[in-house]
Amino acid sequence: MSESSTIHRAGRPASRESRRLARSQRSAAKFGYIRRSIPAVELLHNEAAEIIEANAETILQEIGIEFRRDPESLRLWSAAGADVQGERVRIPRGLARQLLRTAPREFTLHARNPARNVQIGGNATVFAPVGGPPFVADLDGGRRYGTLHDLHNFIKLAQMAPAIHFSGGCMVEPMDIPEGKRHLDVQYAFFRYSDQGCEGTPETPGHAADAVRMAALVFGAEFVDSHCVLLGNINSNSPLTFDGRMLGALRAFAARNQGTLIVPAVLAGAMGPVTPAGCMAELLAETLAGMALTQLVRPGAPVIMGSFVGAISMRTGAPTFGTAEATQMIFATAQLARRLGVPVRSGGSLCSSKVPDAQAAYESAHTLLPTLLAGVNLVTHAAGWLEGGLVAGYEKFVMDIDQLAMMQALAGGMDVSARGQALDAIREVGPGGHFLGCAHTQENFETAFHQSNIADYSSYEQWSSEGRLTAEQRANAVWKRMLAEYEDPGLDPAVDESLLAFMRERRAVLTDTLDED
Amino acid sequence: MSESSTIHRAGRPASRESRRLARSQRSAAKFGYIRRSIPAVELLHNEAAEIIEANAETILQEIGIEFRRDPESLRLWSAAGADVQGERVRIPRGLARQLLRTAPREFTLHARNPARNVQIGGNATVFAPVGGPPFVADLDGGRRYGTLHDLHNFIKLAQMAPAIHFSGGCMVEPMDIPEGKRHLDVQYAFFRYSDQGCEGTPETPGHAADAVRMAALVFGAEFVDSHCVLLGNINSNSPLTFDGRMLGALRAFAARNQGTLIVPAVLAGAMGPVTPAGCMAELLAETLAGMALTQLVRPGAPVIMGSFVGAISMRTGAPTFGTAEATQMIFATAQLARRLGVPVRSGGSLCSSKVPDAQAAYESAHTLLPTLLAGVNLVTHAAGWLEGGLVAGYEKFVMDIDQLAMMQALAGGMDVSARGQALDAIREVGPGGHFLGCAHTQENFETAFHQSNIADYSSYEQWSSEGRLTAEQRANAVWKRMLAEYEDPGLDPAVDESLLAFMRERRAVLTDTLDED
Repeated sequence: MSESSTIHRAGRPASRESRRLARSQRSAAKFGYIRRSIPAVELLHNEAAEIIEANAETILQEIGIEFRRDPESLRLWSAAGADVQGERVRIPRGLARQLLRTAPREFTLHARNPARNVQIGGNATVFAPVGGPPFVADLDGGRRYGTLHDLHNFIKLAQMAPAIHFSGGCMVEPMDIPEGKRHLDVQYAFFRYSDQGCEGTPETPGHAADAVRMAALVFGAEFVDSHCVLLGNINSNSPLTFDGRMLGALRAFAARNQGTLIVPAVLAGAMGPVTPAGCMAELLAETLAGMALTQLVRPGAPVIMGSFVGAISMRTGAPTFGTAEATQMIFATAQLARRLGVPVRSGGSLCSSKVPDAQAAYESAHTLLPTLLAGVNLVTHAAGWLEGGLVAGYEKFVMDIDQLAMMQALAGGMDVSARGQALDAIREVGPGGHFLGCAHTQENFETAFHQSNIADYSSYEQWSSEGRLTAEQRANAVWKRMLAEYEDPGLDPAVDESLLAFMRERRAVLTDTLDED
Repeated sequence: MSESSTIHRAGRPASRESRRLARSQRSAAKFGYIRRSIPAVELLHNEAAEIIEANAETILQEIGIEFRRDPESLRLWSAAGADVQGERVRIPRGLARQLLRTAPREFTLHARNPARNVQIGGNATVFAPVGGPPFVADLDGGRRYGTLHDLHNFIKLAQMAPAIHFSGGCMVEPMDIPEGKRHLDVQYAFFRYSDQGCEGTPETPGHAADAVRMAALVFGAEFVDSHCVLLGNINSNSPLTFDGRMLGALRAFAARNQGTLIVPAVLAGAMGPVTPAGCMAELLAETLAGMALTQLVRPGAPVIMGSFVGAISMRTGAPTFGTAEATQMIFATAQLARRLGVPVRSGGSLCSSKVPDAQAAYESAHTLLPTLLAGVNLVTHAAGWLEGGLVAGYEKFVMDIDQLAMMQALAGGMDVSARGQALDAIREVGPGGHFLGCAHTQENFETAFHQSNIADYSSYEQWSSEGRLTAEQRANAVWKRMLAEYEDPGLDPAVDESLLAFMRERRAVLTDTLDED
């Protein structure tokens, strides 16, 4: 017999009854951040993890890390006992790890709505949307440069999405605003249109400082100095290099007790070896150095170990995602971070595809599910990412948030309470019966399963009569509906005015280009 | 900074060099079945597994299982000490588990080419294609009833696919052959066009016996009696029921020492409770009963615990796949089977989507990756499944086998040999360098990463100039190329003639309908 004949015989007859049940279902509310009930999956054997850790220390001690165009970082390292020659810093075995002992294992990232605070670390997992693309795309307008209007849209979508717990970084670059002043509009947009937590733009030390100043206007200066209200995403220039802008931003955030993400972007074969174990040693060395530096700036400053991993295509040199190698590195990063005792950022819904087709979905799923299972604490780029991060996709965004809601259900683990065991239902239905009408189903149908907003489960005939829409086409209607239903969380008019005044003041002194820092 | 700006700066410049390297890359050869180097992932806590096991025993003892229209099964159960009333068999706590002690933990499934034998159980994982759909679909011809020609095509594709290790069951029903005689053409097609192992059609006891007789013509009668050369897929009628045809087929296979798969098809909310823990107890009870019966027929007969799991949509009653609940059940099935000491079949690349779009890919990936990580031994429906198993999709097939090859790479684990550690490469390249040209990359680029046949990694401009093809459109060319490159494994003419003679003989006595058994 085949399963398909079995399920199509058994599944359909009850459809009228289930439709009746479903009519009373409510739409999904906003979820809190995830506290995982399933174990963190570890694919590395202990010996493999130990080898990678030993190699990272060898890299730090023998090869060292370049800290470019930032004398203050060199001074801090020298004072801490590292061997500094020119911009090359060789860090004695074990020193970075020892410096990291002051970093918190877990911390609270505050939102302007305290109900949306999130925990970073431990068994918490937080989903955040795509950050950084210069382009947007949707089915109606195609691919085009992003604007401030697009950024507002994505902030609103993230605010509405049930399983987006944190607004992350700049979801799309507003290319209609000059680069030197853009950070003001970006930061304002996060504070104005969402009450979730957000990142601070870290493009230059000056921009980082502006982000912290704007946060102080929202949260109060005193609160900001003792609480983490922003995260700054600090990318190293792999292999084994940090540049001056990123180092200045790192110091600006850490000095004000704001969180930093130390994130090497390592594509195996380009910024790292073609073998994942080699990439992991390099990545661990870079993150150890960057994270330790935050503790030299301010012991106790919140810091997160990050990894952004993929591989290059050996055919074209282009970035690839969702491959076996990337999956291995996502699992390994989380495992190494746990061993180190720091929160971890990794994974997401990454893909290379230009459009939200099967390629995009395969690659995104093979990034996201490992991310969840690995126990990653902060999942950036979890929704909307297309084309190697060059594009924020409207349809992709709502497809991904559908998957995030499922990941959240998965993280909840299997319910083995009396309700979950359902022995009485099995007794009631008995051999050969059907469960749809039984008491247990009636009692639990509203919360039984996550209901996808995107997937189509209708019959072939019905699907055909409704126009044979693909997932992408159905998603087009979903994001429009979400924007139409967006609820403004409001912002205290006095705070709003102080932010706008600050922006006017800064615009008057900033140039249009990024040159100043 | 954003990762996308980092990777697009770093990844591209080397593309000319990588293209040069890639020109000498060979196309993928056939892989052997998987011996996993990564641990089997277990999401259930011990206490949860124990609760489910205790509930399964309660179900067997208190509610019992119906063995319908098969007096011989009832006789066997009665003799074994079960409480048989009518067709209801109540199995005392622990009896089924005790009977299963004679079942092999691991066994060899023989192919007519011994190099393609596969191990079932232990740390082995074997991928097999979709089985059972009455329809096929491709981009050119749309959705239509399957024919014998389509079946031949899918057998050839499975023979060619690098990471399909076993041909599985009837990949598409040849609807142009009368149902009562179809099994002959199906079995012949497997033996004629592929030298991989395959299943035997189990629609009726008579068909099962014909499959074993045809296998005896290929392998020799004596060999067949002492070696497993066929698997029969035995579906229970969940909840808690086996029908006469399946029971007769089960006995026909087990009596001849051939393998059986005992597979409840449980969609939560229809054939099982809306809660996964309830479904798992029901599924464990059914599989325990079915597997124990094989040991009553012939102690030592190879048997596999199966699960085919999903949930119904609470909106329409239709089957859904790739949801959090299904993922939980795939992990739990494999964990329960390991605790029981039997091989396990589960998962696949299941989806509800009508077309190979993003929905299909999300759902398939969220089925396949858990299947691999869970340590499932035999993965049926791993390629080609669409529309809840009603359709075998040509494009979907080649998209899925691309994913299977990646799963195979993932199962190999992270290489931490000196080659994998790549410390010399990191020393050679140093801070700020690029890895593409280094010695380590030159030495390893051929085997470095699995190269997708489907994914497009080119730039947006290049992709646009090449017609903006989706993954589905690219896949259309791939299956056609595979069929054009198909290599006939050949079949001994004497064996071929004996099979054809047997078929002529049987066709003369069989009716066109399935009524006889």
